[in-house]
Amino acid sequence: DNGRPVISSGDGRFSMAFRVRAQIDFGAFLQDDPATSTAQYKDLSTGALVRRGFFGVEGKAFKDFWYEFRYNAGGGGGAESGDPAMSIARVAYTGIDHFRVNVGIIEPAFGLEATTSSGQLMFLERPEIENIATDTFGGADARRGIEVAFQHENLFLPGDNLIWTAAFTGSKTTAPGGSAAGHGNGGDEQTQLLSHLSYRFWNDGPSNAIIGADYATILGTGGNVNSYTLQDRPQIRVDGTRLIGAAIGGGNFVSHHGFLIGGHAAANYENFYLGGEYIYYKTDRFNTVTKTADHPDFSGYFLEGSWVLTGEPKTYAVNATNNEIGGFGSPKVANPFSFDGESWGAWELVARYSFTNLDWYRDTPTYGIAGGREGVFDVGLNWYLNNEVKLQFHDSIVHVNKLNAAAGTTQVGQDLNIIGIRLQFSN
Amino acid sequence: DNGRPVISSGDGRFSMAFRVRAQIDFGAFLQDDPATSTAQYKDLSTGALVRRGFFGVEGKAFKDFWYEFRYNAGGGGGAESGDPAMSIARVAYTGIDHFRVNVGIIEPAFGLEATTSSGQLMFLERPEIENIATDTFGGADARRGIEVAFQHENLFLPGDNLIWTAAFTGSKTTAPGGSAAGHGNGGDEQTQLLSHLSYRFWNDGPSNAIIGADYATILGTGGNVNSYTLQDRPQIRVDGTRLIGAAIGGGNFVSHHGFLIGGHAAANYENFYLGGEYIYYKTDRFNTVTKTADHPDFSGYFLEGSWVLTGEPKTYAVNATNNEIGGFGSPKVANPFSFDGESWGAWELVARYSFTNLDWYRDTPTYGIAGGREGVFDVGLNWYLNNEVKLQFHDSIVHVNKLNAAAGTTQVGQDLNIIGIRLQFSN
Amino acid sequence: DNGRPVISSGDGRFSMAFRVRAQIDFGAFLQDDPATSTAQYKDLSTGALVRRGFFGVEGKAFKDFWYEFRYNAGGGGGAESGDPAMSIARVAYTGIDHFRVNVGIIEPAFGLEATTSSGQLMFLERPEIENIATDTFGGADARRGIEVAFQHENLFLPGDNLIWTAAFTGSKTTAPGGSAAGHGNGGDEQTQLLSHLSYRFWNDGPSNAIIGADYATILGTGGNVNSYTLQDRPQIRVDGTRLIGAAIGGGNFVSHHGFLIGGHAAANYENFYLGGEYIYYKTDRFNTVTKTADHPDFSGYFLEGSWVLTGEPKTYAVNATNNEIGGFGSPKVANPFSFDGESWGAWELVARYSFTNLDWYRDTPTYGIAGGREGVFDVGLNWYLNNEVKLQFHDSIVHVNKLNAAAGTTQVGQDLNIIGIRLQFSN
Repeated sequence: DNGRPVISSGDGRFSMAFRVRAQIDFGAFLQDDPATSTAQYKDLSTGALVRRGFFGVEGKAFKDFWYEFRYNAGGGGGAESGDPAMSIARVAYTGIDHFRVNVGIIEPAFGLEATTSSGQLMFLERPEIENIATDTFGGADARRGIEVAFQHENLFLPGDNLIWTAAFTGSKTTAPGGSAAGHGNGGDEQTQLLSHLSYRFWNDGPSNAIIGADYATILGTGGNVNSYTLQDRPQIRVDGTRLIGAAIGGGNFVSHHGFLIGGHAAANYENFYLGGEYIYYKTDRFNTVTKTADHPDFSGYFLEGSWVLTGEPKTYAVNATNNEIGGFGSPKVANPFSFDGESWGAWELVARYSFTNLDWYRDTPTYGIAGGREGVFDVGLNWYLNNEVKLQFHDSIVHVNKLNAAAGTTQVGQDLNIIGIRLQFSN
Repeated sequence: DNGRPVISSGDGRFSMAFRVRAQIDFGAFLQDDPATSTAQYKDLSTGALVRRGFFGVEGKAFKDFWYEFRYNAGGGGGAESGDPAMSIARVAYTGIDHFRVNVGIIEPAFGLEATTSSGQLMFLERPEIENIATDTFGGADARRGIEVAFQHENLFLPGDNLIWTAAFTGSKTTAPGGSAAGHGNGGDEQTQLLSHLSYRFWNDGPSNAIIGADYATILGTGGNVNSYTLQDRPQIRVDGTRLIGAAIGGGNFVSHHGFLIGGHAAANYENFYLGGEYIYYKTDRFNTVTKTADHPDFSGYFLEGSWVLTGEPKTYAVNATNNEIGGFGSPKVANPFSFDGESWGAWELVARYSFTNLDWYRDTPTYGIAGGREGVFDVGLNWYLNNEVKLQFHDSIVHVNKLNAAAGTTQVGQDLNIIGIRLQFSN
Repeated sequence: DNGRPVISSGDGRFSMAFRVRAQIDFGAFLQDDPATSTAQYKDLSTGALVRRGFFGVEGKAFKDFWYEFRYNAGGGGGAESGDPAMSIARVAYTGIDHFRVNVGIIEPAFGLEATTSSGQLMFLERPEIENIATDTFGGADARRGIEVAFQHENLFLPGDNLIWTAAFTGSKTTAPGGSAAGHGNGGDEQTQLLSHLSYRFWNDGPSNAIIGADYATILGTGGNVNSYTLQDRPQIRVDGTRLIGAAIGGGNFVSHHGFLIGGHAAANYENFYLGGEYIYYKTDRFNTVTKTADHPDFSGYFLEGSWVLTGEPKTYAVNATNNEIGGFGSPKVANPFSFDGESWGAWELVARYSFTNLDWYRDTPTYGIAGGREGVFDVGLNWYLNNEVKLQFHDSIVHVNKLNAAAGTTQVGQDLNIIGIRLQFSN
């Protein structure tokens, strides 16, 4: 009932579905007066942009094969606004029971919200600690790689669902040039290994409860690249500026490796939902002057909840050939919006608190890292007019605590408020 | 009968049509010998390019909703050749009688020719004064915004058609970066308000007569941006150079506001068509040294006519969810081209004179603006082989009168001739 | 049976087929230790990329017209990774017996492998001498131009097939900017003339034998451009570096013209295939100091063979509206891969030796050109899982002999080994 057009061959061996996803975001940044502010980023940019502009085709090809092909003409704000045009280009083989293999340009299953389709997010962006995980540690879409997944229902308990995936990935398909990812003389590609475990231990009709764990490691930063960066935006991308960020490597230091571990739990009881996740990052660094190694570590977490006011339950995807396997999704609208009759679509109230700490011994001059700490409290109202059109109204209260440098004496953090509105069309 | 493929759901609540529009332009610039010419642009670039390369989907989604999603891989010549890839991404709500709302990446209805689809233009480009209006004052495609339209037939007179639209828009979806539109620290988005009025006061079967008026204002240039520019190419974009252009702001001046008013009238009597428009621009400027304000103003007009030699009448769009509302379009081909039988498609003879004056007190040194004056006489022959394939052959006689600077003593204008040919496929 | 979805109108006058082609390449470069190597490019970049990411539509429009429209989101490695987004946008007229005309953004038929679709190549890339021919002398896709083709079966002999094409082309649709192709002030477009002749003189059911010849000339390098370059990568593009290359013009020299002639022959006997081609390039150069002209010339060849182990014959395209006219293609898979039953798809063993010589009097200081000589022996195994999914495993043994400059005393060539793997999905 989502109106996704499909063409099929008579014998059912081939099909092609046409997919569209357009997200238009408006964001307003309410900050202190730039004339007196000491913040690093005093005057973030209010405006609108195309966050995602997907067009894609997917379908069955012969027995046991599935393909998906997706372009993206959207992106975030700022210099990095151009998200990769080739977002997904994968072939999935599903010919062995309980297994599937994804090869090509993939989006590996990972974490709690990264297993929710970007078309079904409760908030405008996924939480910072998940974006750091997927961007730096090899997940997210537009990723060259291969993924193997095992999925089994009713394995230990009636109604349970076990999912285990492992992926080996390279860089994103973003326009390369010059650097390691640029495939030029002197720069091999960065590679990562990821693994995701998710278990639904309770299921009662529309209600579900899951626990999960994740691991990812940077096998090598590639070529002559000696550093990487943990960073993200304040959960909206209308202005592309990252308020916090920790560079691993640089100066006297080189870094080629790092890993993360994470755990999450989530459950929906009919139209109520509650979830949370914690992720811990540990990096390897080598001081080329003192010839000593150290291991800066960082962490973050989030807690989120939702209440579908109109009563539709949250949905859980038992299986999927893409990253949505075992993820929570949008409610299915019972009464699509129309002025005739009492049909107002579905309404959902959501809230999330997210905290990310990218400081490590930040008061120590030689080796400390003053990446910054950020807490974001996001409260929102989602209006699903029907299963294709959605409007989201969000307010984020952001607190940034950041020093101008390791052992620096100037606070360059700030308190700000961000209004975010999204219009989405997707099928 | 335009062969636009459509997939529909059985209950008629969903549909998806697939749209293609490819325009390949060839242009030859016949100029004076560069060795002796004093013109600012002595040697414009002869060659070919993809003016538009659209692929899109559009259709119905549930009751009262319409969506459109369009990519563009074409553009004009020169540094700005890359027109925005995300050309249209809109949701229209049509659930209230006589009203529609367009939200997302839209192309607002505006002026006389800007309400004609780019696939149905009689000339290769819209007239300069309309391009200046839409580029700088918030229209054209790839525009973030919201538009409300009211449309009513047979309101005051039998056969009449009243259209009134209002739109609030931001920037285009062009790759941002660095500047105000870049959504970086310190740069809010430019915003504009537009309104368009069009009235068909006479209709007699295939014949129509309309009058209309337009207003648009720059609400703010956004962020720390203190200027904007009125400029356009000589109605062909194979070479992207703009022969005339007036920068509002710069030097001692800052400018954040400006408005335009315009009026137009057009009519077709069966296979004959005549139309014209006048637009007046007034800008606000502030001299930061003398602390005084002034208001440079500019204007332009065009007159155009067409005769469909094979007798097919011009068409008028009573209603539409996009910018074509109330616009004039191509004739419908009665006999598609084929060597069998006497079927030569449709042939149309067209001519337009356009004049644009971007000078303001150009003989005065301190505050004068020597943007230049340009007259273009364009005569063309359009061959519609069928409703999908069109060939256009045009010759433009261009006269540019421009000083090298305000109160400058060197004439850097020129007389030139431009041959333009377009091949178009569209469905 | 390739599962290409098509929508047609009831009267058969219109159709639209949806095409997808995704090629994900992995490449590993096995070179000497960079610490001791004297090679010009010591450390090529191992990794993966999207070589082609096509989505397109094509079909019939009215009587005698065919259209094709194709986007590309892929490309090669390095700075030039972004292949043109607008890959094909053509209208073909087929209304005169034995003739067709292609206009727009086309890919002219040329040479031996360039008449094979990029989706049906036996190797990862076409041979170097063909890429040099098409890139510099006006072929390949994304090319503005017009092509006329004559094709006739059973003309002189029963079972024969004569093909003759001529094309006039300009530049590619690549994002222009600044240079001649940039359509800026002072730079007309480079233009070329190409002609291709191919004759199938023997046909026996699935078996075919052809001979052919090609000619191409640079009519002018365009605008103020005084040089062009013959160059290519070592038949894999994961690293975009070209190991050899001869610049015609530069220094005291200017060059605006050049031509090539080539000849090829190929045959398949059921599931065995053998082919080869020789191309000779001659350039025109003028020394602006000594006021003398010279004519550096270059050449190259390749020999290739294939054996379809599972017995399916190679295919030959008698006719086509695109560049595949008269070309050899992939075998049609008899038993698509599946774990049920003994269905292992089709397997093909291939080998090619290619040699390219871009040196000209390289031991002479003043006028010699030390472009380099390269021999590549490529052996591969192609696994066609079905008609849509293909995996290719290749190893290339590359020998580069190159001086650091004309009359230079340092050898900057190298011996290296390249592992290449491609996953392809196409319909």
